[in-house]
Amino acid sequence: MVSSRFGRLPDGARDLLPAEAKRKRQLEQGFAQLAEQWGYQEVVTPTFEYYENLVSGDRDDGELYKFIDRKGHIMALRPDLTRPIARMVSARMRHVPIPIRLYYLSHAYNYEEALVGRQREFYQAGVEVLGASGPAADAEAVAMAVEALQRSGVKDFRLSLGHVGIFHSLMKELNLHVEQVKEIKKALEGKDFVKLGELLAARDIPSEKQQRITRLLSLRGGSDILPQAEEILDSEDAMAALKNLQQVYETLASYGVQQHVTLDLGLLLGLDYYTGAVFEGYTLSLGFPICGGGRYNNLLGHFDYQLPATGFAINVDQLLVALEKQQGPSEGPTADVLVGWATDRLPDAVKKVQQLRAKGSKAELMLEPAEYEQVLSYAKERCIKDVIYVKESGVRSQESE
Amino acid sequence: MVSSRFGRLPDGARDLLPAEAKRKRQLEQGFAQLAEQWGYQEVVTPTFEYYENLVSGDRDDGELYKFIDRKGHIMALRPDLTRPIARMVSARMRHVPIPIRLYYLSHAYNYEEALVGRQREFYQAGVEVLGASGPAADAEAVAMAVEALQRSGVKDFRLSLGHVGIFHSLMKELNLHVEQVKEIKKALEGKDFVKLGELLAARDIPSEKQQRITRLLSLRGGSDILPQAEEILDSEDAMAALKNLQQVYETLASYGVQQHVTLDLGLLLGLDYYTGAVFEGYTLSLGFPICGGGRYNNLLGHFDYQLPATGFAINVDQLLVALEKQQGPSEGPTADVLVGWATDRLPDAVKKVQQLRAKGSKAELMLEPAEYEQVLSYAKERCIKDVIYVKESGVRSQESE
Repeated sequence: MVSSRFGRLPDGARDLLPAEAKRKRQLEQGFAQLAEQWGYQEVVTPTFEYYENLVSGDRDDGELYKFIDRKGHIMALRPDLTRPIARMVSARMRHVPIPIRLYYLSHAYNYEEALVGRQREFYQAGVEVLGASGPAADAEAVAMAVEALQRSGVKDFRLSLGHVGIFHSLMKELNLHVEQVKEIKKALEGKDFVKLGELLAARDIPSEKQQRITRLLSLRGGSDILPQAEEILDSEDAMAALKNLQQVYETLASYGVQQHVTLDLGLLLGLDYYTGAVFEGYTLSLGFPICGGGRYNNLLGHFDYQLPATGFAINVDQLLVALEKQQGPSEGPTADVLVGWATDRLPDAVKKVQQLRAKGSKAELMLEPAEYEQVLSYAKERCIKDVIYVKESGVRSQESE
Repeated sequence: MVSSRFGRLPDGARDLLPAEAKRKRQLEQGFAQLAEQWGYQEVVTPTFEYYENLVSGDRDDGELYKFIDRKGHIMALRPDLTRPIARMVSARMRHVPIPIRLYYLSHAYNYEEALVGRQREFYQAGVEVLGASGPAADAEAVAMAVEALQRSGVKDFRLSLGHVGIFHSLMKELNLHVEQVKEIKKALEGKDFVKLGELLAARDIPSEKQQRITRLLSLRGGSDILPQAEEILDSEDAMAALKNLQQVYETLASYGVQQHVTLDLGLLLGLDYYTGAVFEGYTLSLGFPICGGGRYNNLLGHFDYQLPATGFAINVDQLLVALEKQQGPSEGPTADVLVGWATDRLPDAVKKVQQLRAKGSKAELMLEPAEYEQVLSYAKERCIKDVIYVKESGVRSQESE
């Protein structure tokens, strides 16, 4: 009996046919070039690792793809590249002068319910800056994300920029239980300010303070929200976070990318490892983020190498979806020239096609002998403009279109 | 308690640090360019699939990395790209005119004992030509493999070229049990002609025939071995296979690559799906193959789409090992220019570094303010030749070397 899964793909996995793969390669090459121009070097880590290296903080275990190897060890497919790179830098790059700037182009895996445009296997283009704690590093990450999105050709994208230090100092002030903080985070991540108000009200927090917090976390906009936030904040930690956010935002003006960025004091992102400025990018046409990142100053300490760090990742699969919506399918001929040949003329056809390739042409060789008319219709079917036919004696060349 | 696996990698998995990753990216870009010049289009398939799609013929189950998903289905990490591409073409590319030329740059996984230079996760650069049965297609695959290896810069590589049809027709003639054929294959794959002789002797095969078979399967060399083989062979199938091999080999002369190729009538490769001309590439400095491929006319039929096919894959990790042995580590500065800045001059430093990047320079921005002397020593440590320092007023520029 043939399994009903035979010939099919699991949910959340997909093939990239030539048109999609071509766009992916262009994005990838563009990103590698950008990263190298900014002084970043590529690294590659394994697809799967010991589970121990891939968990940290509050990551929901359920998101990991786990399996047991034959020695009984638990393995997992990497859920991102940030943790593997932290492990690698801690283990093998302690001699490298800081800051260390690294980039990657790799798949990552997340076992969540597969939604439209959300793949369980997704391709990431990202960077990490390790060993730099100042706002110049955060601004570099944001500016680079903007430039990468600009170069990709995607239109109508925006980045939200926040700072988790503001939220954390508020929660510290309120002296809440970790489970209560989780609930509040969840409401905030869903931009559910009604729920947020309810949760705060249920915790016996004075109504003046409730309003202050809700107002602060709902602040969104340009530099005008910064003095508003300053008025509301009172703890020293929160003020330091706000000041840091302001420095990052101002530096974005020097990069000429500030107009793509909106300040959002309620932005948290999902992961607990963030400690400072965080950002998220999206396009108007898609209902989910296409990039995200931020500062994570404690993760490398987890691997016993105390280095502050920041970084971001673009979800290339979601960017491909956005580009496809915007530009339509990317199709084109497979070659510029087709070389056809009559029976027994393969040797000369091979020489001809190799000459064309040596000159930089994309040249396709027919793989069976054919009549001239067959060659023309073969070329037409594939939209190949130029045809060269090697016939009984000599070479006949003609444009088919 | 911290697990003993924390911070470590499993056997057969590795990180690529910047120098190795750089060489990998160069190989990858070179291969993509070559494939596109020859009229090939890239495709991407998922890292893991339903187990059902990844087994065929005699593949040893033990080589697959398997795991159970939460629905209880068996999944496996792809052991190669040939099967996933056969599935994909059968499911989604039936409307595409044949021949279909595809290339890929992807990881594959094999759970065998991890030996030196043998990774359980390995990166493959390969092609598939689907829907072409003639020797021109086989020759194209071999010639392309040679050109890819040449472009990689690896020296002293050789390809062995054989045809499994010769072996299969001999086995058919002998009327042996499938298990007996397996033993003979194993001896032949190990180039153990003594063992081969013993196995044949134990099967009541007339000694004249034993010698004939052993002699045939040990033939290796240039075109001079073809008439020798012709004298020994007597079945029609074997003669057809030999004739096909001869046509492939002769076409390689037109490509100008015949000098890299040795005929080897005992070459089988490990996989049962091969049906015609097969080849394997290696370098003198390494004890294991760096590429392999051949004709597989029955695999697509397995997915209910009858198409003849051929292809090859280069093991990029093993090629990297060969290149490292040959050229030593590939290191270089991360940037051409370093831009340092005095306190409060970040905005101007950002503008300067962006101007340099816009002109095509690899330009690195320092992430903290620094004294001029600090900037010079930072640049020296990283072997960055040019330094620009944005000081209190105006720009001071100097070559540090």
